[in-house]
Amino acid sequence: MYLDSFKKVALNYRAIFFDAFGVLKNSSGIIPGIQDTFDFLNANGIDFYVLTNDASRSPYQLAEFYQRNGITDIDTDKIISSGMLARDYLRHKVKDGRVAYLGTKSSAIYLEAMDLITIPISKLDLDHRKTNEIRVLVLLDDEGFDWQTDLNKTINLLRRTNVPVVVANTDKTYPVSEDEVAIAVGSIASLLEKVVGKKFIHFGKPDAQMFNFAFQHINQNKSYQKEEVLMVGDTLHTDIIGGNKFGIDTVLVLSGNTIPDQAEFFIKTTGIVPDFICESIAT
Amino acid sequence: MYLDSFKKVALNYRAIFFDAFGVLKNSSGIIPGIQDTFDFLNANGIDFYVLTNDASRSPYQLAEFYQRNGITDIDTDKIISSGMLARDYLRHKVKDGRVAYLGTKSSAIYLEAMDLITIPISKLDLDHRKTNEIRVLVLLDDEGFDWQTDLNKTINLLRRTNVPVVVANTDKTYPVSEDEVAIAVGSIASLLEKVVGKKFIHFGKPDAQMFNFAFQHINQNKSYQKEEVLMVGDTLHTDIIGGNKFGIDTVLVLSGNTIPDQAEFFIKTTGIVPDFICESIAT
Amino acid sequence: MYLDSFKKVALNYRAIFFDAFGVLKNSSGIIPGIQDTFDFLNANGIDFYVLTNDASRSPYQLAEFYQRNGITDIDTDKIISSGMLARDYLRHKVKDGRVAYLGTKSSAIYLEAMDLITIPISKLDLDHRKTNEIRVLVLLDDEGFDWQTDLNKTINLLRRTNVPVVVANTDKTYPVSEDEVAIAVGSIASLLEKVVGKKFIHFGKPDAQMFNFAFQHINQNKSYQKEEVLMVGDTLHTDIIGGNKFGIDTVLVLSGNTIPDQAEFFIKTTGIVPDFICESIAT
Amino acid sequence: MYLDSFKKVALNYRAIFFDAFGVLKNSSGIIPGIQDTFDFLNANGIDFYVLTNDASRSPYQLAEFYQRNGITDIDTDKIISSGMLARDYLRHKVKDGRVAYLGTKSSAIYLEAMDLITIPISKLDLDHRKTNEIRVLVLLDDEGFDWQTDLNKTINLLRRTNVPVVVANTDKTYPVSEDEVAIAVGSIASLLEKVVGKKFIHFGKPDAQMFNFAFQHINQNKSYQKEEVLMVGDTLHTDIIGGNKFGIDTVLVLSGNTIPDQAEFFIKTTGIVPDFICESIAT
Repeated sequence: MYLDSFKKVALNYRAIFFDAFGVLKNSSGIIPGIQDTFDFLNANGIDFYVLTNDASRSPYQLAEFYQRNGITDIDTDKIISSGMLARDYLRHKVKDGRVAYLGTKSSAIYLEAMDLITIPISKLDLDHRKTNEIRVLVLLDDEGFDWQTDLNKTINLLRRTNVPVVVANTDKTYPVSEDEVAIAVGSIASLLEKVVGKKFIHFGKPDAQMFNFAFQHINQNKSYQKEEVLMVGDTLHTDIIGGNKFGIDTVLVLSGNTIPDQAEFFIKTTGIVPDFICESIAT
Repeated sequence: MYLDSFKKVALNYRAIFFDAFGVLKNSSGIIPGIQDTFDFLNANGIDFYVLTNDASRSPYQLAEFYQRNGITDIDTDKIISSGMLARDYLRHKVKDGRVAYLGTKSSAIYLEAMDLITIPISKLDLDHRKTNEIRVLVLLDDEGFDWQTDLNKTINLLRRTNVPVVVANTDKTYPVSEDEVAIAVGSIASLLEKVVGKKFIHFGKPDAQMFNFAFQHINQNKSYQKEEVLMVGDTLHTDIIGGNKFGIDTVLVLSGNTIPDQAEFFIKTTGIVPDFICESIAT
Repeated sequence: MYLDSFKKVALNYRAIFFDAFGVLKNSSGIIPGIQDTFDFLNANGIDFYVLTNDASRSPYQLAEFYQRNGITDIDTDKIISSGMLARDYLRHKVKDGRVAYLGTKSSAIYLEAMDLITIPISKLDLDHRKTNEIRVLVLLDDEGFDWQTDLNKTINLLRRTNVPVVVANTDKTYPVSEDEVAIAVGSIASLLEKVVGKKFIHFGKPDAQMFNFAFQHINQNKSYQKEEVLMVGDTLHTDIIGGNKFGIDTVLVLSGNTIPDQAEFFIKTTGIVPDFICESIAT
Repeated sequence: MYLDSFKKVALNYRAIFFDAFGVLKNSSGIIPGIQDTFDFLNANGIDFYVLTNDASRSPYQLAEFYQRNGITDIDTDKIISSGMLARDYLRHKVKDGRVAYLGTKSSAIYLEAMDLITIPISKLDLDHRKTNEIRVLVLLDDEGFDWQTDLNKTINLLRRTNVPVVVANTDKTYPVSEDEVAIAVGSIASLLEKVVGKKFIHFGKPDAQMFNFAFQHINQNKSYQKEEVLMVGDTLHTDIIGGNKFGIDTVLVLSGNTIPDQAEFFIKTTGIVPDFICESIAT
């Protein structure tokens, strides 16, 4: 398997989307050497953004992590999270009324739009008069609620009232330590969807809406062509196939989910082919 | 839609398998009038059994419910539960060693076979030396553990050690009151299976192994042909398609999951066709 | 179920996306009365486009059907087809080399971009030196090839060489007469995907990329907000959930796939809720 | 990965089920050295049977292949095919009337039971009076019909009339030469099932009904315990998980579908663990 130098690849683009986990950070913290890469990108006038399936924290809080760890190039404006798409949906399609949610109080910040009143499932009264006031249910995070009590409450809410359900993170799991993962809200959403037999609205990579949202975001001030944008990720099923389908070039890095030994095998068996493979972005 | 009289139909068979929930009982208790049906069956020398996807209680405990409610015809020997298949699997394929489980202490009775040591996931130490001793994981019930803590523990156990996972109940939900349901262990199993990407071993209707187990059970003393056995259930996707595939005749009753108004529509859209449709077994 | 007047609803928008089949036409031809609706839209300065999962014919050929049937308002520029997204993908990600395809010669017009050489699977030599030259496989139409021979050829091509596979129409079936349907290329794609175990790239409603492509298309000359655009379709699983997720308002019409009697039931069981329901666009 | 000697393993059992393809034969013919294994089994009084997902040929025709190739130990009585389960279903559940089928004339031999009249889909008149006479549809083989014409005819038959559909082989593909495979009728069944949205009745490994049928078949004359029976196969998803679930011991051989290099990886990622791994049955 031929490995490209990330810096050499980057020089051919004007803007780069970085996945967060497995690319910029891992369970031990910031991946060593990436500050040097950001210096290189800055020196060459290449813009960059973090494109993350994360609705557990606001862009401000997500940026803070990088700032606190010395990566000052990543501020709030550089963060594009799947939670922002959920907020965008509410802005266009809901506007006012009550929004029920599963997640932490901190994740509920994504729902603070316009005239919406937010209510965690745990505080929701399943009485019909109350459930009739709910306009939408948003799944934000796997933390912040009792799974058994509140997931059972959720399926009974959805049997009783027919509201759209928005999932603000499509990931199945997320890493919590070097060799442990936790079930992400994307998996919880699939469980609920299967149990109630309804179709939810999912936001996050690999879905085109996430890439389109990011592309529009960076085109607000400057003007980029798709050929000038590069997606960098550690996961074939989200970052790479999503980027490919959106029509931008893709780099698979081997610093996260995809182990060097298995990269070729997975590319072959899934049919998801990145344009480049790099050891990490620090090379 | 033509409705048959259950008693008239029953007269053509020598043994009957009854699904429990929606056929014999509902969230309010025993379905009225079924004692009369059991008297009729007894008077006509027709044998009967309860075939249930339930591993939360032992056959003894399941029978006790009927006894307590005056249906004395249903004793322990009449109960065939999916939990019994899980025990059968352990007897044939595991024999000794440690069995981890998710479920109540009461459900763990199904694991008490031969020289097995049972340990709930909540008490399991994820240390490698400890997980290496686990020979099989059994999913018994949705109660008896903290979902968030123990499901996350389970996926990390399954990432670490490669043991078979047995699911002792394939149901998606079960009723808890007239208009509320709860997520059953079958749905939890699907969630885990999807997250870890492994194939579990599922026991329960509509799987042929459940019907075969029941058929062998009733053939221990007497000798029945498949033509002489009738399956009665309220659910097309478990009772009816399972019975049809096993080669026995089937009755759909409208006293449970399948609402009279929608029976014809569901039969048409699913292609699952019962041999008979009856309002309930009390008619 | 409350039915809205389509014209009244339309007055609140500046541009409308119409699904083709079941909205503008059916197996008997143009749906009666729609010319009057187009006159009304024109008189009120409301723009409109046809948004169709169709890659069997070019936009020019698709428009011709309407022209021939007296609906002169629909010309080539008004047609946005899923085939156009496949072409867009090739333009961004493939650029040159050989493209293999399944479909009619007429559907292959979508592949005529840049320096691509097109070759139907039927003419492809499975010899390794030849398959190595293939850069991408595109599934365009269910017609134009022998299914048994060419689908078997396709799976062996995909086992031999690892190229992206683009599906230019995600529909499962399409109507061929009042009471008959045919298997569409979307279903054929699912079959192949399952057999070879690879992930294909699918274009068409309900995918956000289709809506985004259409939205950019209409924003080339004028400037529309999402709030000013309306999606009109006869299918909950494509038109309605796709429009809702993209953030535009949606109308379900009952002149096609969704039978009036079942509309409410399907909305309730799927959880896909249109903003409005109209008998047809001619009302 | 530790490899066992097949003969040593075999000595602990009284009866052995062999998968056919990848175990006894491959695309070049009989796997060398297996006659010696059969002599060994005979000398030690170990009984053996062929358990195959094949409904394209009768047991007589399947046995003929082995006879013709010098393996005289395998005669008709030794063959247990998934086609036999389809026949068994018809015997118990259909008995008389018209049976429509997809497959070759030679595969239709499985339908010749009792008073059934068989009719290939190609000869079926879709007129309502004719389709109403159909009692069941059986999918036997991928050969013997025009895919496009007859699969489209089949979905319209299933939209028009609500009959059970029996699939006599659940395999996805089968090998046709050293490096080419063909789409099997199991994949065609999945395509149709998805298109019409109905549940079919599938027979074949890994389903318990196949193992149970085989177990009863060998228990007609002698009396075997599950502990005395061994399943030998080359495929984790059919032979091994099916045997494990049925409660018998399993051997994975590396002479077919599962390549030696990947055996350990596949066992680990699928969670399907054979009791033994052998290079082939000739060792």
